[in-house]
Amino acid sequence: MSWWTTDETHDPARTSWVESANGHPDFPIQNLPYGVFSSASGEAGIGVAIGDRILDLFACAAAGLLPAPIAPLCTAGTLNGLMALSVADRRALRRLLSDLLSDPAYADRLTPMLHAAADCALHLPAHIGDYSDFYVGIHHATNIGRQFRPDNPLLPNYKYVPIGYHGRASSIRPSGVALRRPVGQRKPPEADAPMVGPSARLDYELELGVWIGAGNALGTAIPIAQAADHVAGFCLLNDWSARDFQAWEYQPLGPFLSKSFQSTISPWVVTSEAMAPFRPAQPPRPTDDPAPLPYLSDADDQAHGALGLTLEVLILTEAMRTRGEAPFPLSSGPASNMYWTVQQIVAHHASNGCNLNPGDLLGSGTISAPDRSGYGSLIELSVGGKEPVALPGGESRTFLEDGDEIILRARASAQGFVPIGFGECRAMVMPAL
Amino acid sequence: MSWWTTDETHDPARTSWVESANGHPDFPIQNLPYGVFSSASGEAGIGVAIGDRILDLFACAAAGLLPAPIAPLCTAGTLNGLMALSVADRRALRRLLSDLLSDPAYADRLTPMLHAAADCALHLPAHIGDYSDFYVGIHHATNIGRQFRPDNPLLPNYKYVPIGYHGRASSIRPSGVALRRPVGQRKPPEADAPMVGPSARLDYELELGVWIGAGNALGTAIPIAQAADHVAGFCLLNDWSARDFQAWEYQPLGPFLSKSFQSTISPWVVTSEAMAPFRPAQPPRPTDDPAPLPYLSDADDQAHGALGLTLEVLILTEAMRTRGEAPFPLSSGPASNMYWTVQQIVAHHASNGCNLNPGDLLGSGTISAPDRSGYGSLIELSVGGKEPVALPGGESRTFLEDGDEIILRARASAQGFVPIGFGECRAMVMPAL
Repeated sequence: MSWWTTDETHDPARTSWVESANGHPDFPIQNLPYGVFSSASGEAGIGVAIGDRILDLFACAAAGLLPAPIAPLCTAGTLNGLMALSVADRRALRRLLSDLLSDPAYADRLTPMLHAAADCALHLPAHIGDYSDFYVGIHHATNIGRQFRPDNPLLPNYKYVPIGYHGRASSIRPSGVALRRPVGQRKPPEADAPMVGPSARLDYELELGVWIGAGNALGTAIPIAQAADHVAGFCLLNDWSARDFQAWEYQPLGPFLSKSFQSTISPWVVTSEAMAPFRPAQPPRPTDDPAPLPYLSDADDQAHGALGLTLEVLILTEAMRTRGEAPFPLSSGPASNMYWTVQQIVAHHASNGCNLNPGDLLGSGTISAPDRSGYGSLIELSVGGKEPVALPGGESRTFLEDGDEIILRARASAQGFVPIGFGECRAMVMPAL
Repeated sequence: MSWWTTDETHDPARTSWVESANGHPDFPIQNLPYGVFSSASGEAGIGVAIGDRILDLFACAAAGLLPAPIAPLCTAGTLNGLMALSVADRRALRRLLSDLLSDPAYADRLTPMLHAAADCALHLPAHIGDYSDFYVGIHHATNIGRQFRPDNPLLPNYKYVPIGYHGRASSIRPSGVALRRPVGQRKPPEADAPMVGPSARLDYELELGVWIGAGNALGTAIPIAQAADHVAGFCLLNDWSARDFQAWEYQPLGPFLSKSFQSTISPWVVTSEAMAPFRPAQPPRPTDDPAPLPYLSDADDQAHGALGLTLEVLILTEAMRTRGEAPFPLSSGPASNMYWTVQQIVAHHASNGCNLNPGDLLGSGTISAPDRSGYGSLIELSVGGKEPVALPGGESRTFLEDGDEIILRARASAQGFVPIGFGECRAMVMPAL
């Protein structure tokens, strides 16, 4: 059983007695993502999204519907315990939940354990011990690099090293939590000295989030062939960035306060199991590129290591909201623009013996397409702030304004399978204090 | 009551009925650092170092010796709860413990609650939510910068921005836990492509660790005048570094696998209260340097913001150990070589609204003196590996070899007060897997 192996839970003919699940763009019975929710009536804990409902796993455990080793993990306030399960146990739990939610014989018993998602709040799904952010979107790296080094946009290490850095875990918030425009130092090129004030170049970054499942002991590596077993699932990640702070602070130790004020994630953990049908081959590297070093090289990874995902960014400005308009699409593109696979970044991260733990979060880095229709940040779309992006109603943006809301979405699809979605990763910019 | 205010607990005439405390180089009754220990007989929990003993605070709480709001915090397995106390409560607890350990009337009652430190293991003192490392050792930054940019060693942001970056929390280990030499990518300048193998340029870094006490809410800053109240205490930190990996990977996002394989801290938290007598004025900036920006500027910080600490690095090689020799001193220098105060790095870290939490750890960055006697890393002492450092018995080092043990020590002193020490931060290099 490999990470791309499908089973009866992926059968496109399978439907749920939860009617809203059938044909649901994000949460048909083929998805079954986990999250941590609280309901208006006070229930809280681990849930599974099914259509427009949330199945309360605490209630399922209390009713004796879950196997003994797994039930206690479903009574926790975070998914860390479930994430740490073996691949076999994760698959078994998925099969059980799929059976419970497809077999009408369970409908009467389970219906009282369903909550209307619209009436629930969703929280961070896990305690995030460490958060690391990578830089695998090669077109983003090239676009950003070109703004600094027109003749030599990609640094010499890029095609050998899955470049990454440590991020701030404490300021990660789930979708829906507004962010405060950060205050900080910036130094315009023409100024003699830096000034302090609210960021004037606040940006979003469209990223894929990767949830670590089982960890590794300090001092041991994770071989590339086993890396997928250490991935519990996926989410969307908006790595908000103050470009003016970043340009001034980032040398020589990398981004710090330009990123650490807040990051936003979608609250549902779309499991590795749910993604099994959506694992195409990694696109071949251009012939001039070096082959991955042996510790990053694996035939299965090449054949099934990519993600069949389409990622999308939308904006809703204060004016659009007032006019009652829908969010406006800024860009859309495939996850195949990742130069390194998820397995490669996991194997690289642990290659020096660094211990990963269940609930650790990895970010892909901004995923941009080669052309403007799929640029994953405003600094790319506006060419460093020089070409405003036109919005409906005569508005335009170089960078984000207060009241702007950014919405990330993702949808997995593959021939012969029911598509699944990630739900939204959404947050609004509030004025600086 | 300010962070530099002393009281009867600092009285040099105060002695303990624990005889080994009187004249103890690290842990006289004027220190009273907190730690998390386990004894050979199975007791475990929060303790206070006093001479060569550890006072078991769990036992004190169980015996009703601690005030009601504080006792439950002493039954935890980490110091996070105690660290989060208000300054007034922290001072009150220190006064109480100082009284208990100085008044002979308590000796009979407390003696059964003492453990011989030599028979105990010391653990990480806190759950470290996030770890950030700074770069405030200006002579280190200059020395390292000179190896890359001989004419322009310090980057333009250095004297405006307390440069820092996010580090890896999961791989921080207490003194005594050996580290595995990391494997990774390095590219010698003459090679066409990188190679993978054990680091050939493994180094230590002498740093001060800062424990965050009370935190701040996301989206709010910590004013410089209040920053000291958010510091629970201090430790020693060895930020082990694979210089060959670092040179190849660090652009553009900073150090990652070159640091994340392990960091070592001294296990005792020397409290801000204990350090009150050892807070001299911050040395004046050179007249050509810019003044700190307003959010980093405070009269009290200038007058009392530094630390009267002497920091020391020693090495014990396999050969020295075999010969039964004592560790050999590599360098020693004062903490006044920090260009930014602890208060400035705390205020800067939170200035963008990033939330700090109790038990977060900040590193100062390597603290080096202006001259070779106080260089805080081997890459400085050996001038980038070009000038081997002579050791006893005809040995020499450019970088660390397997079996080498690095020991960091720190000692606070001030006229009219009993000096206190930090205990050791020690770990040995094991061969790569």
